[in-house]
Amino acid sequence: MIIDGVKISETKMERLKNEIEKIKNTGINPKMKIILIGNDYGSIVYSKAKMRRGSKLGIDVDLDRYDSISREDLIKLLKRYSKSDDIHGIMIETPVPGINYYDVVNEIPFYKDVDGMTSYNLGNLYLKNEFIAPATARAVVDILDYINIKSGNVAIINRSPVVGRPLSMMLLNRDFTVTVCHSKTVNIKEITRSSDIVVVAVGKPNFLDRSYVSDKNIIIDVGINYLNGKTCGDADYENIKDYVNAITPVPGGVGPVTATDIFENFINGLKYQIKG
Amino acid sequence: MIIDGVKISETKMERLKNEIEKIKNTGINPKMKIILIGNDYGSIVYSKAKMRRGSKLGIDVDLDRYDSISREDLIKLLKRYSKSDDIHGIMIETPVPGINYYDVVNEIPFYKDVDGMTSYNLGNLYLKNEFIAPATARAVVDILDYINIKSGNVAIINRSPVVGRPLSMMLLNRDFTVTVCHSKTVNIKEITRSSDIVVVAVGKPNFLDRSYVSDKNIIIDVGINYLNGKTCGDADYENIKDYVNAITPVPGGVGPVTATDIFENFINGLKYQIKG
Repeated sequence: MIIDGVKISETKMERLKNEIEKIKNTGINPKMKIILIGNDYGSIVYSKAKMRRGSKLGIDVDLDRYDSISREDLIKLLKRYSKSDDIHGIMIETPVPGINYYDVVNEIPFYKDVDGMTSYNLGNLYLKNEFIAPATARAVVDILDYINIKSGNVAIINRSPVVGRPLSMMLLNRDFTVTVCHSKTVNIKEITRSSDIVVVAVGKPNFLDRSYVSDKNIIIDVGINYLNGKTCGDADYENIKDYVNAITPVPGGVGPVTATDIFENFINGLKYQIKG
Repeated sequence: MIIDGVKISETKMERLKNEIEKIKNTGINPKMKIILIGNDYGSIVYSKAKMRRGSKLGIDVDLDRYDSISREDLIKLLKRYSKSDDIHGIMIETPVPGINYYDVVNEIPFYKDVDGMTSYNLGNLYLKNEFIAPATARAVVDILDYINIKSGNVAIINRSPVVGRPLSMMLLNRDFTVTVCHSKTVNIKEITRSSDIVVVAVGKPNFLDRSYVSDKNIIIDVGINYLNGKTCGDADYENIKDYVNAITPVPGGVGPVTATDIFENFINGLKYQIKG
């Protein structure tokens, strides 16, 4: 089975759009700020995609671009947006040249932390509080939920604070058993083949080939790579898609669900701000 | 091999005692508050043990006992202690009758959060920041460090925010591959037997018997149970101790290291408060 991420995202977009409409009817103008520093190609593409998706939902997504900025000035900017009643969500595109992202992200109040990367929001995931959660991790659980998979063994190949770690907490919040693997894992192929679900996010085209998978595997491919002018994931898609139990394609899998889930965070934070 | 937790704890106590002595020489009187509500037997025993251990280190550990308290009054108390310059660490003994612990613990500022249970400190563990970390999780990594185990597969049987979740993050901060198991895990014995290290915290005497273990396993027993008038862990200690590669006894294993590691948190927070 090929899992259709576009369809999952469209269903969710519909729901979020209705929520935004209701909020706008009360006279509030939902607004999100993206801060983009430098000229990273990926960041520029993603920012523009977020602006388009925001506009579909009726959210004003405003981009602040800086060639460079000092740590002090970035913090000042974050403090200003944090205090502003007109701005309901803030995200800092990574990489942030010359600045430690994790060192500044905690300046954003948890209810405006659209990326779910403040320590407070990350910590809440331990406590089954998924009010705001990193969008990629949310997308993976959305996909599993959509295909009605409620438990089983999951191997995650990624130990970052953006994907592997929050996802492991969110899967434990459900009834999954979770193994987090990484570059230092010795018997990784044994672990993936014996798991029910494999989530891969290593940033290497064709990494997850036949040697890693079994026919019972559901493959969730988080990778976004560019190879020979085409977008592809981390799975050797053409060679495993008919062998495994199910797989998300790239493009059209995790990507659109993630892009939508950013706005689920935004809306949750917005509702919190409205309630006061 | 039987792992001697008392010895590990004594080495650390010596180091912490020296640190406290240096701090006291600058005229500061290190003070910690324990808030104990109700009459839970375990909480009373643990509180007294902390007072004794604190006094060995030269830390004034002060116990506030309440038969019962409202959520509002507990929050008021926490706010008062949080602001006080004379109190450097605060812990709330669990269970807290009638009050959701996680709902009130975030009133404690992160640098006075001796238990490492505020969302902020839990979230920092994703980012390899172990400034303050739940003491049991810290004890497990201390023990692995002491026996010079730096990587390998770890099966943790516990998914709580106190043990399994923070420990999984701290093991990923090192080079361990981590599987978090729980009551809904189907093939738990396969997972434990094929792991290098098994951490068990289920609260059931003799739970981890021969059927769960292999001769290559290092067993870290986090359980503290009372059976026939004796303290015991979660492992079927007598029947597996000569079979497995290594094991921590109960008492004398994880317990004393955990009791010491609470004060490592306290001292880290105290130093942060001194630096201002």
